[in-house]
Amino acid sequence: MERQENLLNKYKEVRDRTVEICNPLKIEDYVVQPIEDVSPPKWHLGHTTWFFEVLILESNIDKYRFYNKKYNYIFNSYYESLGERIIRVDRGNLTRPTVEEVLHYREIIDENVEIFLAEKVDDKILDLIELGLNHEQQHQELLITDIKYILGHNLLFPTYKLKYDKSLDKLAKLVEPDFLKVNEGIFEVGYDGDDFHFDNEEKKHKVYLNGVKFSDMLVTNSDYIGFIKDKGYERFEFWSADGWGWLNANGVKSPLYWHLIDDKFYEYTLTNGLQKMNPDIPVTHVSFYEAEAFARWKQMRLLTEFEWEVAVNKYATDLDYNLANFQGNNLFHPLARKESSYQLIGDVWEWTNSAYLPYPGYKQAKGALGEYNGKFMINQMVLRGGSCATSSNHFRTSYRNFFQPDKRWQFTGIRLASDIE
Amino acid sequence: MERQENLLNKYKEVRDRTVEICNPLKIEDYVVQPIEDVSPPKWHLGHTTWFFEVLILESNIDKYRFYNKKYNYIFNSYYESLGERIIRVDRGNLTRPTVEEVLHYREIIDENVEIFLAEKVDDKILDLIELGLNHEQQHQELLITDIKYILGHNLLFPTYKLKYDKSLDKLAKLVEPDFLKVNEGIFEVGYDGDDFHFDNEEKKHKVYLNGVKFSDMLVTNSDYIGFIKDKGYERFEFWSADGWGWLNANGVKSPLYWHLIDDKFYEYTLTNGLQKMNPDIPVTHVSFYEAEAFARWKQMRLLTEFEWEVAVNKYATDLDYNLANFQGNNLFHPLARKESSYQLIGDVWEWTNSAYLPYPGYKQAKGALGEYNGKFMINQMVLRGGSCATSSNHFRTSYRNFFQPDKRWQFTGIRLASDIE
Amino acid sequence: MERQENLLNKYKEVRDRTVEICNPLKIEDYVVQPIEDVSPPKWHLGHTTWFFEVLILESNIDKYRFYNKKYNYIFNSYYESLGERIIRVDRGNLTRPTVEEVLHYREIIDENVEIFLAEKVDDKILDLIELGLNHEQQHQELLITDIKYILGHNLLFPTYKLKYDKSLDKLAKLVEPDFLKVNEGIFEVGYDGDDFHFDNEEKKHKVYLNGVKFSDMLVTNSDYIGFIKDKGYERFEFWSADGWGWLNANGVKSPLYWHLIDDKFYEYTLTNGLQKMNPDIPVTHVSFYEAEAFARWKQMRLLTEFEWEVAVNKYATDLDYNLANFQGNNLFHPLARKESSYQLIGDVWEWTNSAYLPYPGYKQAKGALGEYNGKFMINQMVLRGGSCATSSNHFRTSYRNFFQPDKRWQFTGIRLASDIE
Amino acid sequence: MERQENLLNKYKEVRDRTVEICNPLKIEDYVVQPIEDVSPPKWHLGHTTWFFEVLILESNIDKYRFYNKKYNYIFNSYYESLGERIIRVDRGNLTRPTVEEVLHYREIIDENVEIFLAEKVDDKILDLIELGLNHEQQHQELLITDIKYILGHNLLFPTYKLKYDKSLDKLAKLVEPDFLKVNEGIFEVGYDGDDFHFDNEEKKHKVYLNGVKFSDMLVTNSDYIGFIKDKGYERFEFWSADGWGWLNANGVKSPLYWHLIDDKFYEYTLTNGLQKMNPDIPVTHVSFYEAEAFARWKQMRLLTEFEWEVAVNKYATDLDYNLANFQGNNLFHPLARKESSYQLIGDVWEWTNSAYLPYPGYKQAKGALGEYNGKFMINQMVLRGGSCATSSNHFRTSYRNFFQPDKRWQFTGIRLASDIE
Repeated sequence: MERQENLLNKYKEVRDRTVEICNPLKIEDYVVQPIEDVSPPKWHLGHTTWFFEVLILESNIDKYRFYNKKYNYIFNSYYESLGERIIRVDRGNLTRPTVEEVLHYREIIDENVEIFLAEKVDDKILDLIELGLNHEQQHQELLITDIKYILGHNLLFPTYKLKYDKSLDKLAKLVEPDFLKVNEGIFEVGYDGDDFHFDNEEKKHKVYLNGVKFSDMLVTNSDYIGFIKDKGYERFEFWSADGWGWLNANGVKSPLYWHLIDDKFYEYTLTNGLQKMNPDIPVTHVSFYEAEAFARWKQMRLLTEFEWEVAVNKYATDLDYNLANFQGNNLFHPLARKESSYQLIGDVWEWTNSAYLPYPGYKQAKGALGEYNGKFMINQMVLRGGSCATSSNHFRTSYRNFFQPDKRWQFTGIRLASDIE
Repeated sequence: MERQENLLNKYKEVRDRTVEICNPLKIEDYVVQPIEDVSPPKWHLGHTTWFFEVLILESNIDKYRFYNKKYNYIFNSYYESLGERIIRVDRGNLTRPTVEEVLHYREIIDENVEIFLAEKVDDKILDLIELGLNHEQQHQELLITDIKYILGHNLLFPTYKLKYDKSLDKLAKLVEPDFLKVNEGIFEVGYDGDDFHFDNEEKKHKVYLNGVKFSDMLVTNSDYIGFIKDKGYERFEFWSADGWGWLNANGVKSPLYWHLIDDKFYEYTLTNGLQKMNPDIPVTHVSFYEAEAFARWKQMRLLTEFEWEVAVNKYATDLDYNLANFQGNNLFHPLARKESSYQLIGDVWEWTNSAYLPYPGYKQAKGALGEYNGKFMINQMVLRGGSCATSSNHFRTSYRNFFQPDKRWQFTGIRLASDIE
Repeated sequence: MERQENLLNKYKEVRDRTVEICNPLKIEDYVVQPIEDVSPPKWHLGHTTWFFEVLILESNIDKYRFYNKKYNYIFNSYYESLGERIIRVDRGNLTRPTVEEVLHYREIIDENVEIFLAEKVDDKILDLIELGLNHEQQHQELLITDIKYILGHNLLFPTYKLKYDKSLDKLAKLVEPDFLKVNEGIFEVGYDGDDFHFDNEEKKHKVYLNGVKFSDMLVTNSDYIGFIKDKGYERFEFWSADGWGWLNANGVKSPLYWHLIDDKFYEYTLTNGLQKMNPDIPVTHVSFYEAEAFARWKQMRLLTEFEWEVAVNKYATDLDYNLANFQGNNLFHPLARKESSYQLIGDVWEWTNSAYLPYPGYKQAKGALGEYNGKFMINQMVLRGGSCATSSNHFRTSYRNFFQPDKRWQFTGIRLASDIE
Repeated sequence: MERQENLLNKYKEVRDRTVEICNPLKIEDYVVQPIEDVSPPKWHLGHTTWFFEVLILESNIDKYRFYNKKYNYIFNSYYESLGERIIRVDRGNLTRPTVEEVLHYREIIDENVEIFLAEKVDDKILDLIELGLNHEQQHQELLITDIKYILGHNLLFPTYKLKYDKSLDKLAKLVEPDFLKVNEGIFEVGYDGDDFHFDNEEKKHKVYLNGVKFSDMLVTNSDYIGFIKDKGYERFEFWSADGWGWLNANGVKSPLYWHLIDDKFYEYTLTNGLQKMNPDIPVTHVSFYEAEAFARWKQMRLLTEFEWEVAVNKYATDLDYNLANFQGNNLFHPLARKESSYQLIGDVWEWTNSAYLPYPGYKQAKGALGEYNGKFMINQMVLRGGSCATSSNHFRTSYRNFFQPDKRWQFTGIRLASDIE
């Protein structure tokens, strides 16, 4: 029962953490959906709970009675049809159930899951619990970025919680980036251990890389301001045709959350609200289009997801140091690079120049689980690493995150690379 | 100072009433804007307050300091640009200021208006106060219909407040409708008294009417079900081309808030939630397109706004009885017709077959007030009467309400008429 | 048989005129539909023919065989569904039937109609023929304005036909506009004779007018340039809310076909292509929104349709002179005002401030004919008079033309009016 | 001068071929643009000519005077702004220049290019000529598919030219598909010869393949009907999320040009118009979404572009036979598989499961040429092979075609593959 006990502990920890992320919010903040990508915090609270209710309780308990049958429609992300559908569920206008009611729903489901796990259950169920917890950790990251979007698009620029002590940033003695190398050859990528991982990381396979050098540091705000000042957003030669269309249709002139006031750049942050730009920290909230254009302006390129994975595995000795950074992820903003370390994982998700496609031998799982990853393998680009909003035990070097190339409300950033001539 | 004292009393009464309307809401209900027409209750609370802050306090108090300058952008209905605009204000996603903060804003402004009115002010200012109160009464009606939209589109169909005693409906002994007449001739319409009225009711002028007969009763749910069962929504011959386009583009098959469940009609109401249709009360929440199609199906037509005004003036002796109904407007739903009375004003707004256009001699006021009515005189149809959501002292027989022909979230209904052959 | 003979002659004349209007076109010009309002000339040729095939031949000839059954779908303006519909008919992409084939279709149907009319037919059929010819005259005007749109939006600015001798314009000795009056009182409007007219002109009825004065001249290009130079398109106070929205959404800065080149206004005309603006001729190709804004800028207003009709009837002695102008309608552009005449009918359609609504006693005809006018009586404004593109025997003082307030590809213009104080 | 002479001959041949493809059209067919993807044939004729005028004549002839400066705006595919832009160029509504005028433009430019090539020019110019001819061959294929779209969406279903003798199809003795193999290992892909190729085929590089088996035959109409009959279009489990959204938004139920009439499938073809489906020929006009869903239904997958290239190189001995097929490309429809051959290249473009991304070491050319391929490397999928509409000397095993996953008006088809377990 050791695994089961560990999981039960993790269950409590993860479920608590989700509520804790929401604690600083006002009731009003839980309700809105300003853009399609951004879900109301209340919905995340309900949806992650519904996931356990359906996958664990309803599937395994005889004659299980739903907490509230209508929650199936309200908190299911697929919006399927109600037998006699009388109304469309629209996530962003759902004022009821109230926050209080959703929190009560969480409590009841948690109580029931914990009772259920008091007795020995078989491994398949534990696998589902583990999936549910990883699913919830993904929603924790979304919660943070969705909250940032909601507060950061409010004219009053409220802060999310107590101010972060900026003097911490100054501890970072800034160092110059250096270029590391991966030489031409055959490498293995993908996951093949026994621990939790998603199906899209399978199966481990060989790839041939042609040799690449890449920066041990992420592109900073200061670097990116150079691009803007050199009219990067006005010169089509740096942009893909789609990117140029996106930029013009949306009037994009800088990363998300940047504001040019009296000719100075300000940035909205969760901890300090609207504040003067810190030039030394990694640029974040850029789309793939912007990441690619920036790299072309530098006459460089992005890494592919395979180059990234091989590089991280090679320079893994320093991974620990970087993982230490994640512990600071309650700061919810990227950190400046510190002396004698690589910025390899954990500050911002890094856009790669790889489309999200199946690995050789990939098999989509049957049923609902198969829908988890496999059905999104078109028109999206892979991001690697993790960010200051990622749960610290949710990192993996084989982890494949993916978004459409115009998305930028996640903590996304840029690492430069180039061929070895 | 008599007028000033009366107005001060009315000020307190009206301002309190707005907050009272919101009292049954949960915090979550104040925030959302499910469709463009429907504003968040919190916004109504702030906007009506801002109206007094700008028109009374800021215009008349030397060196007045705004409660919060940003509220100018947040609660101005015209969304004008901020000097150095750094963000767009989007009514439906404004989680801050919170409800508590907006209520505090109301208190402070009210305090200051009351202090300001303690000293004698000139009549022009009193005119503005009166305008502000009428403006607020219009928003009270919108508040009620917007709340209905928000709750009535929630899968849980919450009720707005304590159940209404349906036995009251039964007191109404239903009587058959009768037809009343206005004969051909010259009549006067429009306002020319000294009391408050909007500029669009001016000036009083003569019209020639060709003779009309009309029902002393509004079309009921039961009548309207007849139209639906006769495939009224599927037969293009009853519909204008625009109406037919609207119906098909939106899949409309019944009035708003109607649900066909197991072949029976249910209706969402503020007081009782989703309940079986009461066949005897006036049909409401229909668009002009539906009102007109229903009338064509009956081989009749709607009244023009002039016929309506002349008719009400003629049969005014019964007006008092009807006005008594309004006192019941906390019921927020139409009432069945009672014996020996006309249903002339006050249950539902009646669509007329008149476009909203200026009267002869109409002069648009200068400045912001001129924008109040005059700039909407195109592509809208006039509604006359008032509804169960209208403040009881906000009725006038010359009052001209107006909406685009597809709108139906107000309490809108149908009265049949026809030419005298 | 006299009426029948006259109609047969008119039939030939009208049908020939339609083809004649198209003669100057290249084959390529017949095919395109640059905006939804503008139909391909080829479609007009086919549609007007199909109208006679269905209403006359198919309805009255036993076992009639259609020229081509598919033409029913191609040339029907209502796009109804084909029994087993296999494809959507999209007017603007119909490269086949070719122009040659459509002209052949016209010839065959004309031959058959003429054979059919060789024998005496009853009056109901003659009524339909007359309707068909009036319908075709309406399409002749649309043909001219649609051709103007097609050629006038081509970068090469082709002319429609031989240049018009501009010296004719100079014959016009320009005179100052004067204001004429209609005093307060009861008047009759609407049609009640025995000749052809549309159902929407019925029935004659009394209206009460409050007295109006109005210009005996239309607003000229020169007048309108004054509005532009006074920043008329940038000052919201002249515009209705809808008009202001339209202007901003479409970037409108001048009437259609105007181009500002090197700070001088040019205008595309059918006869001379792109040429310097003639300041003395009536402004045309303005929307209702623009007409209304111009009038507000002048602190005046537009006539209502009833004022217009009463005014024209009163000043009808000069109508003949003006009708003489129409003979020049092959010029396809408005003329400058000539000495001692009123510009009352015939240069441009005049926007009125009347919504298109039914007259008292209006009865919509049964069947297809009823769809002709009645179903458009919402969201449109009435235009009166006629234009240089209207067939000379298609004018009537009771004629009601109507378009949505944003439309401006017809020859539409402005006459100023104001109340008598 | 040998290369120059050869190119001059090829110039004449290719340029003639383009006009020849258009010969069967009626003038009306040259003008329309039914959807954004499909350009008017007239535009292709002008655009390919403008390409030579700008890249060869204007760049190399001193004081060159454009045939018509406005053609720069009309025939430039990038719609750049005219110095004093007075009008927007809208490809699908350009009735002028006429077809005759465009053909005259072609003649004059061809004459001038031939005069220019009479004297020795340097290799860089010859490279541009070669690029221009390859560009024109791409437009020849687009011409054929665009013509098919224009005619195939006309209710009259006109044929493009003389009927194709279907008995030819019967010569094809249909054989069962077989599975061929490529085993795991390192392979080289990409172009590195001296002949013409596009920048996106560079540079040759190593890839590691994990072993694959694949059909030596393309999926046939008959196979695809099996998918439809098994409710393939109604079962979400076969579709990516984007594909499922596309299918539902567009009501897709079969490949483009298929019509279900009286429960039998018909297909529009250029040579025979609407005809009964031939079950034995390869299915074509499917989107990537459909190709992928079909493969999942079969529990197989598509090839990657690298697997495809390696496979074709391996089985190249049979390539000649297949290339012979192309000679038949005036048939403009896929052919049934013949005995003892592989269907490897030339019937239909084969969707691969590879996103269109740069190869290692890819360098985008400077200037206009760099825009040719590089800027489209996002959100598109690679197609390999070529089709019955591809010019016979335009095939290359390293050739990379690419389209968005929803496009299906090209001759696109499906080849099945699967991992070697």
